[in-house]
Amino acid sequence: MGRRIAFVPTMGFLHKGHASLIREAARHGDDVVLSIFVNPTQFAPGEDLEAYPRDFDGDRKVAEKAGANVIYFPDVKEMYGKNYQTFVELEKIPAHLCGLSRPVHFRGVATVVTKLFNIVKPHTAVFGQKDYQQLLLIRQMVRDLNFDIEIIGGPIVREPDGLAMSSRNTYLTPAHRRQALCLYQSLQKAGEMVSAGVRVAAEISAAAKAIIKTCPDAQIDYIALCNPETLEIISDIKGQVLMALAVKIGNTRLIDNMLLNTESGT
Amino acid sequence: MGRRIAFVPTMGFLHKGHASLIREAARHGDDVVLSIFVNPTQFAPGEDLEAYPRDFDGDRKVAEKAGANVIYFPDVKEMYGKNYQTFVELEKIPAHLCGLSRPVHFRGVATVVTKLFNIVKPHTAVFGQKDYQQLLLIRQMVRDLNFDIEIIGGPIVREPDGLAMSSRNTYLTPAHRRQALCLYQSLQKAGEMVSAGVRVAAEISAAAKAIIKTCPDAQIDYIALCNPETLEIISDIKGQVLMALAVKIGNTRLIDNMLLNTESGT
Repeated sequence: MGRRIAFVPTMGFLHKGHASLIREAARHGDDVVLSIFVNPTQFAPGEDLEAYPRDFDGDRKVAEKAGANVIYFPDVKEMYGKNYQTFVELEKIPAHLCGLSRPVHFRGVATVVTKLFNIVKPHTAVFGQKDYQQLLLIRQMVRDLNFDIEIIGGPIVREPDGLAMSSRNTYLTPAHRRQALCLYQSLQKAGEMVSAGVRVAAEISAAAKAIIKTCPDAQIDYIALCNPETLEIISDIKGQVLMALAVKIGNTRLIDNMLLNTESGT
Repeated sequence: MGRRIAFVPTMGFLHKGHASLIREAARHGDDVVLSIFVNPTQFAPGEDLEAYPRDFDGDRKVAEKAGANVIYFPDVKEMYGKNYQTFVELEKIPAHLCGLSRPVHFRGVATVVTKLFNIVKPHTAVFGQKDYQQLLLIRQMVRDLNFDIEIIGGPIVREPDGLAMSSRNTYLTPAHRRQALCLYQSLQKAGEMVSAGVRVAAEISAAAKAIIKTCPDAQIDYIALCNPETLEIISDIKGQVLMALAVKIGNTRLIDNMLLNTESGT
C-alpha cells in the first residue's frame, strides 16, 4: 500500500475556513496536498479575477500550520497552454443559484478540478460547504466521470459575529463589513422561523429580504429555498431544505447557505 | 513498481484492425485491458446505434488471441446512471471533418473515454489511426486535462484490396462492398498525384470526386485535405497533409484517411 493523498484545492488567500479543510484532509491522508490557483476560466469578464487577493507567503504559513505538506502552485500558462480547448460541463446543477448570474463559472470549476485531480491523483479531496453548489457539482462530476476519489464536505467556518469566512471579505470597507452580516442574519431568522413551524418558503424569503433591505449597500442576487440534492426551488418546507443566498454588498458579491430541517429546527 | 496497464477501448465486433491495436498494447503493458462498449452518447438520433453489430463471443476469441487479458464490458445503465449530466467537450477539433455531420459525436467520445480512463486507470492507451480525428481529439484532451496516460496511434489495417477494416463493413451488400473501394482508390490516386508533383489541393479533391462519382450508390460527405494537427483545410500542399474522406455507400457511412507527404510522395 502506498501513502494516501488528501487534497484541498483552493484559490489561495487562506483563512480559517481553508485551515479547517486542511485539518480535515490531514485526517484522511498521509500526505496533504494544497493547491493554490486563481483559475481564470471560472471568472467571467468584469468579475474580480485581477482583483482577487493573493498572498503566497501568508498562505504557506497557514497551510503548514494546518498540516499541508505539499503546496501545488501552478501558473496560468502551465494550466492553459496554447491551443487549450477542453472543458467539462454539467447540464443540470449549474442551471440554478450562482450559475444563473455566473454562466461560465461552473464549467471553469469542473474543468480545473478535473485537471487538478489528474495532476494530484488524490484518494480524497475536501471542499467547503460554503460553496454548496460547487460541492454538489464536484460530487456529481466525480460520480458521472468515475473518478476514484472520495469527496468530503467541510463545514462553513464563521467569524465570531457569524459572517462566513471568505477571501472576498477582504474587499469590504468597515461599513460594508457591518452590512455583510445580513446574509447570516437572514439564515438565522430562517432557522428560527422553521423551528417555530413556518412551512411556506415565500414567508421565509420575504423575511430574509426584509433584513437585507435594511442595508443601504446590499443588492440581492438571489434568496433561494431549494431541494438540497437538485437545487430546484421548493415552495413548501418538508424534510431538509437548502437556503442559499447571494448578495452584493457594494461591489463585493458574497454567498452563504444553511440547511434547514423540519425535524431538528435547523 | 506495479504492473503496467495498456488499454484498448473499442465498440466491439472486433476485426484485424482491433487485433493489431491489442498486439500493440501488449508491447506496452503487462496487462492489456480491452473495453467493449457501444457508447450511446456518441450516436445522434437516426444514426446506427441499434444496428451497430455486436458479437461478444467472437470478440472474446479475437481479444484473447491477440493478447488481451481483461475484457471490460459494461452496460449502458452502469455507464450513464439516473441523473447523468457531465460531458467533456473540445472547442476546436470537432469543428472539422466528421464533427460537421456528426455534431454530438466527439462530445460523446471525449466523455466516454474520460470515464473509461478513470475506470481502467491505464498507463498507455491505443487508438486506431483510421479514426484520425478521434485520435487527435484524445491526444488533445489528454494534454488539456492532464491525464497521465501515453496515447499511441495504431496504423490502419486494410483488406487485401485496400478497404480499411471497419465493423461497419459488415453492413455492406456485395455490390456496395465493391463500390466501397472508392475511398481507398481516391487516397491512392492522391498519393500518386502528390508524388508526381501536384501541389494544388483542389486538383486532388477533384480527382477523388471523379473516382467516387463512378460508384452509383456513393454519396460524398466530405473530401478534405487539411493540416494534420489542426484539421484546417489547406489549399496548397506543403510538407505533410492529411487527406480524409467520409462517403456513404448506400446507408453505410465509411471513413478513411492517409497522410500525404511532399518529401516522400505518400
